[in-house]
Amino acid sequence: MFPKNTWYVACTSDEVTEKPLGRRICNELMVFFRGEGGEIAALEDFCPHRGAPLSLGFVKNGNLVCGYHGLEMGCKGHTVAMPGQRVRGFPAIRHFPVVERHGFIWVWPGDAALADVAELPHFEWQGNPEFAYGGGLYNIACDYRLMIDNLMDLTHETYVHSTSIGQPEIDETPCTTKVEGEHVMTSRFMNGIEAPPFWKANLRLKGLPDDQLVDRWQICHFNPPSHIMIEVGVALAGKGGHEAPEEFKAASWVVDFITPETDTSIHYFWGMARKFRVDDQSVTDQIREGQGRVFAEDQDMLELQQRNLLAWPDRKLLLLNIDGGGVQARKIIDARLAAEASLAKAA
Amino acid sequence: MFPKNTWYVACTSDEVTEKPLGRRICNELMVFFRGEGGEIAALEDFCPHRGAPLSLGFVKNGNLVCGYHGLEMGCKGHTVAMPGQRVRGFPAIRHFPVVERHGFIWVWPGDAALADVAELPHFEWQGNPEFAYGGGLYNIACDYRLMIDNLMDLTHETYVHSTSIGQPEIDETPCTTKVEGEHVMTSRFMNGIEAPPFWKANLRLKGLPDDQLVDRWQICHFNPPSHIMIEVGVALAGKGGHEAPEEFKAASWVVDFITPETDTSIHYFWGMARKFRVDDQSVTDQIREGQGRVFAEDQDMLELQQRNLLAWPDRKLLLLNIDGGGVQARKIIDARLAAEASLAKAA
Amino acid sequence: MFPKNTWYVACTSDEVTEKPLGRRICNELMVFFRGEGGEIAALEDFCPHRGAPLSLGFVKNGNLVCGYHGLEMGCKGHTVAMPGQRVRGFPAIRHFPVVERHGFIWVWPGDAALADVAELPHFEWQGNPEFAYGGGLYNIACDYRLMIDNLMDLTHETYVHSTSIGQPEIDETPCTTKVEGEHVMTSRFMNGIEAPPFWKANLRLKGLPDDQLVDRWQICHFNPPSHIMIEVGVALAGKGGHEAPEEFKAASWVVDFITPETDTSIHYFWGMARKFRVDDQSVTDQIREGQGRVFAEDQDMLELQQRNLLAWPDRKLLLLNIDGGGVQARKIIDARLAAEASLAKAA
Repeated sequence: MFPKNTWYVACTSDEVTEKPLGRRICNELMVFFRGEGGEIAALEDFCPHRGAPLSLGFVKNGNLVCGYHGLEMGCKGHTVAMPGQRVRGFPAIRHFPVVERHGFIWVWPGDAALADVAELPHFEWQGNPEFAYGGGLYNIACDYRLMIDNLMDLTHETYVHSTSIGQPEIDETPCTTKVEGEHVMTSRFMNGIEAPPFWKANLRLKGLPDDQLVDRWQICHFNPPSHIMIEVGVALAGKGGHEAPEEFKAASWVVDFITPETDTSIHYFWGMARKFRVDDQSVTDQIREGQGRVFAEDQDMLELQQRNLLAWPDRKLLLLNIDGGGVQARKIIDARLAAEASLAKAA
Repeated sequence: MFPKNTWYVACTSDEVTEKPLGRRICNELMVFFRGEGGEIAALEDFCPHRGAPLSLGFVKNGNLVCGYHGLEMGCKGHTVAMPGQRVRGFPAIRHFPVVERHGFIWVWPGDAALADVAELPHFEWQGNPEFAYGGGLYNIACDYRLMIDNLMDLTHETYVHSTSIGQPEIDETPCTTKVEGEHVMTSRFMNGIEAPPFWKANLRLKGLPDDQLVDRWQICHFNPPSHIMIEVGVALAGKGGHEAPEEFKAASWVVDFITPETDTSIHYFWGMARKFRVDDQSVTDQIREGQGRVFAEDQDMLELQQRNLLAWPDRKLLLLNIDGGGVQARKIIDARLAAEASLAKAA
Repeated sequence: MFPKNTWYVACTSDEVTEKPLGRRICNELMVFFRGEGGEIAALEDFCPHRGAPLSLGFVKNGNLVCGYHGLEMGCKGHTVAMPGQRVRGFPAIRHFPVVERHGFIWVWPGDAALADVAELPHFEWQGNPEFAYGGGLYNIACDYRLMIDNLMDLTHETYVHSTSIGQPEIDETPCTTKVEGEHVMTSRFMNGIEAPPFWKANLRLKGLPDDQLVDRWQICHFNPPSHIMIEVGVALAGKGGHEAPEEFKAASWVVDFITPETDTSIHYFWGMARKFRVDDQSVTDQIREGQGRVFAEDQDMLELQQRNLLAWPDRKLLLLNIDGGGVQARKIIDARLAAEASLAKAA
């Protein structure tokens, strides 16, 4: 159960080069490729000739050539040519609205007539030269909402990521959840604590001492359908915390785009944007490597949680204060699902 | 959906030695073994004692001994002996009509009473000392008819096998399909072209120049249920093509026996027969190795095509001129299926 | 179909140390851990907070801490604490009666109110310093009753284990089955035979000659639900066989605890107890290694037998004299199942 009339990240820009990419998004088998000017296109991964997967083909003159018998497919799902054949009467295949922005390719798996580029989310770091970004992609066998819960409740860091970013103070400090329209924000501020290993390393990368107390913050932002951006960081204690001047803090923007693959699996695009040493690729690589290791720690937990929810489908879960972010996010998702259902009924 | 009152290749002769072979054919779990005189037998792979797989047993005095508790099974599915037991009342298991011919073992998975050895297909190269033969076996997760389509429409060589036997001229040259009774024949003749890499290698093997233009032919023969033989070759240009004298051409007979394993998987017996250097095993090995590499290129395409047909079960496929061979072959299969269905209804 | 109001071996003592162990027993997802005094506890592997698997957590002060958000669970399935939360109203999760005895942890997957420690089976070698024990655990994809059949009919040794413990004399010697209450006993005595390789090795370990004729015995004991203990051994011929004085024989007690994991898979705890060189760990290791190799030979047979029974669900199997032990064991199991069904109906 996911909204379909909305934008999801399908892939990163560098996943679609001269070769097409096949990927299942929201249960739809899609193929992504680049037209003549490099512009991105998304189609059903199904050749109208004999049903072959177009993603095994190649691009020629901006059309996608089926790798089985050479049918040439245009960006909008119409057959353009086929050796020795007239193609005018060939049935079209479905195309999906698709937009490329700042290194990501976004797709709208629902009703194309409703696709609105204005609804694309925008984040401060995107396309902003003051920031550097690095990230990766994991495939995880769980409902996308379990990952939203995970990211909107960072108390789990104390347990799942105890050797990197977790620390008891997270657990001990209450969080606050606010909702503004469809934007959910869960914040936690921990002052005068010791920085955990991941942040000590970031302080050092920034040339700051790692043996002083710090003020730490986590501000999780949810926007539907499943985009999460988390402001995280530490500042030397007493310098203003989240509001401290740049020179006293190590701050990052955690980027999480969660795209349903099926009802019980996701493409999880994770990354981190930062404002310091933005031209130093080795810093980007070092952070990505560390973040990738931390985020991999969630996989077992989420997949066995999913196994449990399938094994005990009728059991009610608890909604605690720490779950507030996830609960509010699900309310917004449910409202979107209800709106789509009544739209479908009206049609 | 496959005809069952017909002969399929179950295995090659050398797959059944002193050890039995278990294999699923047309959804039936079968075991193949050799009786006292070496004659082949096929039974359900199910010991009537406790249901153990007989294929884990061994052969003794021409009987198949169950590897669990020693029950001895005769070639027709009757228990012959068991240590310390009277076996007269033991229920028989099903046996399948089976014939060994020229290196292949054929089985009739349907009504044994209808099995007719006269219906076994015969090919010119079989048992003919003028020919040498080499081949292999692949297991592919697709409906057997997708492989028939594949082999009756060789335009796919241009795309799937572009580095070995494919060339644009295949695409550019129309093919012709003829039906005679249950025999479907699709032919394509390409004159005055450059030979692709696979055929250049074959010309060299035959001692012919590989830098001259050639006339190339492909003549696909389908016979039900799913036997395909393809005459392929090249002759030096202008020497008569398919009809050219032996000394000017490199010709082969592609052998394709397609046996359904389940509704969506096949045992694919592929091979090649030739008339030159028939005693040179190294040539046989070299051709088999090359052909094996080429035929492996189809696997991804066919398995993802099968995935697509299951994902979009209601979508109609196109029937183009190039599909004529496959379309006619399916008509013959459908007629056989209809005949079997009305036979079953009458019974 | 397995009795649930009974004791099964869940794991060995050393599988649950300071870390919890997750395991599926009789279709129930369970977690095993040790309370403050080291006493064993078994719960549903489901955190009442968000359904996370408790088995990924850790033990603190005798409580099981969920590895996701730190909920602390007590030994009886009540939430004891959670950082920043009142837990009084949290729903309990199910706990399972569990007992640790002589290196094994036993669990009662049925109605806890009926659990009776007096029903725990007891074997002579358990906790007895005159004996040494070594064993292992295999997971096998078959109904637990197929393994009972296997162990109560040792004629299969002649075929499945022909190079280690099998010999034709097993087949040639009839066995006798007796039932006393819920105890089934199948015995076979083979006198004046050559010892097979496994027993020759055991004779040597005991300092006895391996080139003399022996008297061999196999006495299989079944106790419900699925515990099998087999007295096996050889004595120098004519010294009294099973009753011979210790100095003339090599005797062992095969230990087989079969625990259903699902309807078609088992946890198979196998082992061997012996009375000689009990303090010599290298002898234990050597026997375990040999037994492990022998018992692994059954896996393919049992899993393909299971495949066959699923493929031919309506086919009746034979009940021969050699099957007497398995047949009687199943009668006792069926009676237990019927008793549980009528209990459930009455409730």
